[in-house]
Amino acid sequence: MAKVNRWLLPEGVEEILPRQAWQIEQFRRRVLDLYRSWGYELVIPPMIEYSESLLIGMGSDMDLQSFKLVDQMSGRTLAIRADITPQTARIDAHSWKQDGPTRLCYTGTVLHTKPKSQLASRTPIEVGAELFGDADVHSDCEIISLMLATIDAAGVDKVHLDLGHVGIYRELVRDSGLDEAAQAQLFDAFDRKAQTEVDVICAAADNAAAANMIKALIKLNGDAGVIAEARTVLVDAPAAVTEAFDTLQFIVDYLQANHPHTPIYIDLAELRGYQYHTGLVYAAYIDGVGHSVANGGRYDGIGRLFGRERPATGFSANVNALLPQIATGDPAGLILAPSLDQADEELLTTVAALRERGERVVHASSDASKPANCNQALVKENGSWHIKAL
Amino acid sequence: MAKVNRWLLPEGVEEILPRQAWQIEQFRRRVLDLYRSWGYELVIPPMIEYSESLLIGMGSDMDLQSFKLVDQMSGRTLAIRADITPQTARIDAHSWKQDGPTRLCYTGTVLHTKPKSQLASRTPIEVGAELFGDADVHSDCEIISLMLATIDAAGVDKVHLDLGHVGIYRELVRDSGLDEAAQAQLFDAFDRKAQTEVDVICAAADNAAAANMIKALIKLNGDAGVIAEARTVLVDAPAAVTEAFDTLQFIVDYLQANHPHTPIYIDLAELRGYQYHTGLVYAAYIDGVGHSVANGGRYDGIGRLFGRERPATGFSANVNALLPQIATGDPAGLILAPSLDQADEELLTTVAALRERGERVVHASSDASKPANCNQALVKENGSWHIKAL
Repeated sequence: MAKVNRWLLPEGVEEILPRQAWQIEQFRRRVLDLYRSWGYELVIPPMIEYSESLLIGMGSDMDLQSFKLVDQMSGRTLAIRADITPQTARIDAHSWKQDGPTRLCYTGTVLHTKPKSQLASRTPIEVGAELFGDADVHSDCEIISLMLATIDAAGVDKVHLDLGHVGIYRELVRDSGLDEAAQAQLFDAFDRKAQTEVDVICAAADNAAAANMIKALIKLNGDAGVIAEARTVLVDAPAAVTEAFDTLQFIVDYLQANHPHTPIYIDLAELRGYQYHTGLVYAAYIDGVGHSVANGGRYDGIGRLFGRERPATGFSANVNALLPQIATGDPAGLILAPSLDQADEELLTTVAALRERGERVVHASSDASKPANCNQALVKENGSWHIKAL
Repeated sequence: MAKVNRWLLPEGVEEILPRQAWQIEQFRRRVLDLYRSWGYELVIPPMIEYSESLLIGMGSDMDLQSFKLVDQMSGRTLAIRADITPQTARIDAHSWKQDGPTRLCYTGTVLHTKPKSQLASRTPIEVGAELFGDADVHSDCEIISLMLATIDAAGVDKVHLDLGHVGIYRELVRDSGLDEAAQAQLFDAFDRKAQTEVDVICAAADNAAAANMIKALIKLNGDAGVIAEARTVLVDAPAAVTEAFDTLQFIVDYLQANHPHTPIYIDLAELRGYQYHTGLVYAAYIDGVGHSVANGGRYDGIGRLFGRERPATGFSANVNALLPQIATGDPAGLILAPSLDQADEELLTTVAALRERGERVVHASSDASKPANCNQALVKENGSWHIKAL
């Protein structure tokens, strides 16, 4: 590797420079204060865990997405977190086991072996919130509202919401009589919306009625009217599917009443990225970003892996993707004070007082060179210190 | 692995639960605002880099301390950062190349293959600040003051400062005529303060005068008087050693004038953990923590690896170690509002207004279970909403 290239970063890995970094810091504070005011408690889960703890039951997607390494202290395999949600489920189930509903929030970097989509970061910073111990649909409403408030805190005023329900597909597949291998093929074909492949796989199903409903499901997407259409097309589906429609309709009604300016798109065939989800799922999109900026859903029972089964719903948002949208003012300029080697006590007191009230003061170097972004100077005139434009 | 143990975390890896997490968040805000007011710009370097970029020229300590993994996108080796300072040097040298002095600060998690000392975290959260482009000793004074202000922001009122200068040892070893293998042995023996081994290795040196001075150096530690003692013992040392004494004396005078309540301990034989440092080094200790809570020093020229050689000085502090010291009030209790399914517009407006002014409001679940930590409730009396103690 040539010396001049040592500053190169791996593909999909970025460093965040001052202006953007301060934007992120302000956004972080705004949303953590927001979550706090909604009663969510901040947790800081670790970057690494035993891969058995982090990945068990999370599906092959997350396994492939997670970097693994060997722990030289234990000889065991560690995984770097690719998702913070399962970590909060472990906290709710074990280390911070509270009675009644528990609300947790977090922010932090996750690492992905491959970017989730072209141009996506492999080291995204996430913020998110999770609500454990409440199975009621009102907790989903709360989480969706908080997700929209998060995007709003980034200064975005136009957001689209995709709604789905992974329980519908799962119920129909369970009914179909397809074996495990065929189910895996079907999931893959479904994910690519490969209708012909789906038709071929479904043709082998024992339960023809369920197979026909699966084939129909792939086309069920569009505006809120899709729910009514699906009730007709899937009229013979198990009761759990009807309940899923009720949930979706409830959420649509809630959103139309409380977030009337957020367009809703319903896609009953959307399964990607929701491997541990069990019910309602949703993703938020904004103009100019090719992938979702936030997503979430219900994932009841994940905590049983850690010894406590609880209803759970939550979302996470990708700060890197929201970043270009984060509204902030111009960076504050610096006030140049004389070098520390000329410092008298009065100067030091003046500098301390300026910094205390939020001004940004630097001492000049002894060689009189000055930092970029100095637009004012602290100078002594008639025995006292004044700020002058540079 | 038994099911019940899935919540186990690897040794030296911890998760931070609500109360401590919010303490850390408040501390983080306080110090980042502090750094900003001193003119330091926030950067967010990535968690992973090519190991060639992250570790080149950083010494074997940091190499051994860093987790490595294979990047499936490039097939190359990646390292997880064990230290953020070299990343800021790369930013100063390349991606944020400014004229004049550049001040950068950061906070983030680093990972260590082994804990730096017993009971230390392998996933510590660090905060730190670095000043590039100013070789003058006043910039070291500024950085030390900022390090002490960081510890002060954690509410610690008693801190001890260890001062050293790695240039003294390096100059004497260079003069000694010892070959590279002997130098490595000597460093190891010196690090363990193994006087007998040091004597044996020094006996083989071509330059007996330099060897004698190295043997004397190991005992030069104590209060500020050590500098005068060292000037006598090492009177025949090269000019660079005399300059090192001048620097140390300057720093001692500065500290005694500006931080009179901070005890100073001088150890001219302290080299551990300063593999890329080139001059003045220092570490801060507080009661009840067995390792340093912050350390730093001068590391001129590190940026040449990335194409730009600059004087550099900086420190980082270990937030986990400072944490028990971080002073905060009691956690704010929650106000319990009626369930969202009973929500009328007036209730929603009231809840939003309470949250806006910093109160923490949760909606009750439909099944009437309530979160822990609710000590007030929002109730309707005589047609309007009031907060009542629970």
